[in-house]
Amino acid sequence: MTAPQERTTAANAELALLLEVAGSPKPGNVDRHREYDDLRFEHFLAGAVGARPGLEAARTTTPGVAFEQAVRGMAHQRGGNTQFGALLVLIPLVRAASRGELTPAGVQQVTAATTVEDAVAFYRAFDIVDVAIGEPPPGMAPLDVRRGAEAADELREQGLTLEAVMELSADVDGVAEGWTNGFERCFQAAEWLGETEGALSERVSRVFCRLLGANLDTFVQKTAGTAAAKEATARASAVLAEEEDPEALADEFVDREINPGTTADLTAGAVFVALERGLEV
Amino acid sequence: MTAPQERTTAANAELALLLEVAGSPKPGNVDRHREYDDLRFEHFLAGAVGARPGLEAARTTTPGVAFEQAVRGMAHQRGGNTQFGALLVLIPLVRAASRGELTPAGVQQVTAATTVEDAVAFYRAFDIVDVAIGEPPPGMAPLDVRRGAEAADELREQGLTLEAVMELSADVDGVAEGWTNGFERCFQAAEWLGETEGALSERVSRVFCRLLGANLDTFVQKTAGTAAAKEATARASAVLAEEEDPEALADEFVDREINPGTTADLTAGAVFVALERGLEV
Repeated sequence: MTAPQERTTAANAELALLLEVAGSPKPGNVDRHREYDDLRFEHFLAGAVGARPGLEAARTTTPGVAFEQAVRGMAHQRGGNTQFGALLVLIPLVRAASRGELTPAGVQQVTAATTVEDAVAFYRAFDIVDVAIGEPPPGMAPLDVRRGAEAADELREQGLTLEAVMELSADVDGVAEGWTNGFERCFQAAEWLGETEGALSERVSRVFCRLLGANLDTFVQKTAGTAAAKEATARASAVLAEEEDPEALADEFVDREINPGTTADLTAGAVFVALERGLEV
Repeated sequence: MTAPQERTTAANAELALLLEVAGSPKPGNVDRHREYDDLRFEHFLAGAVGARPGLEAARTTTPGVAFEQAVRGMAHQRGGNTQFGALLVLIPLVRAASRGELTPAGVQQVTAATTVEDAVAFYRAFDIVDVAIGEPPPGMAPLDVRRGAEAADELREQGLTLEAVMELSADVDGVAEGWTNGFERCFQAAEWLGETEGALSERVSRVFCRLLGANLDTFVQKTAGTAAAKEATARASAVLAEEEDPEALADEFVDREINPGTTADLTAGAVFVALERGLEV
């Protein structure tokens, strides 16, 4: 017999996006069995496929530029923002993996090396797809990401690198926080994934619940408020304690539009780390 | 706003694999909601991602060699043969699309141009993954595909191109038949897909049932017998006539392991043609 061809790092990143969305039940998120009328499973499939050239680029291109490319490819489907946050997790992880340093310290080297032009490219990505985002803090209007490419002069004037931009939001955005600590939570969750057995869609679901049970989801905080985010975390913990049925919770959260998207983004990062470390599909 | 980046031809082929498997219900096949213990949805996701470099290669490389590469990438998952047949459909379609001739006549130009070395590469692909295949006809043992690379001398001696190899099985294998008529049925089914509306997973399901209702599935014939193949076609027709519930039929066929895999392969081809012709996701 001839041995199969192993996947490249970029292929593992794309597969992580697909395995994340296929994981079920993931209370409040699109999964194999649940979707919203205007945000369907098929949009995530197209988003992952479209993102691949950007994920390839992340191996050799500076992170902000690779991210912008990945988002441009992801956006060629009618669901809108499917994986903006997940790509913002994956791009530095792919880059660290390509440098042979897929550890939190390796990721921190990647984020520390970002430039002002990475920040400008990151802002340009907001011109490609609508991203749910809150008002900027007082005094930060010139750096409102919703300005997109128009914020370029301000970024250059202030000399803000992409890492510096992320630091500004690290306390209110779980993905930005990852940029400041080398995505520790993804590495932790990759270990959890390795400890589980059985079908990957169930293992991904379990890891998602552990991530959500451990930290408030900042996307839920932004879109549904802190009380909803606290409820989501408490009920994910109840699922883990087998005090709550995850399928019923998933249906309820989809109905109430409580959508722990940041936790899904970090789950994609965890799956990628696990795949790179030998997780078999 | 900045426009999204359109997908390449190879990306559309990968997406066709994903949309095919996500289509539900597809009686007897793995879909979003149904899987076998040893052949799961996640194996198809990994198979599609892994096949992409081979699908890219099909744009510039001769079909047999590109097919072998695609199968090598597809096989890096534990489900075994996920998309061998679908790739055998897609490779000539991708090549025809890359030449700007995505029509049955354009595909026939591609298949007519195959060489003996394409046939040798095709046989090598059987060394990568176990493919369910029947006994060869009397006198054909030297060309049994299960010989894999060992059949190379025989192929070269007889001067058989890949097209000629396919012609030998065209009356017992629906994919091989497509190689002889430019995959007419995929083009027909792509039109059916264009006539439907709504979520793509349901549209794919409907097109699958139309294909199955119109022709016996040769994979079912091989693995479960002609009576089962006739039953599958009759009951798919009953689904189309709204005389049978497709979800119940899907459950029943999965239980009975009646798996219309050739129809699924042709469905993937139809989705690819539709995507190339502008089907929006």
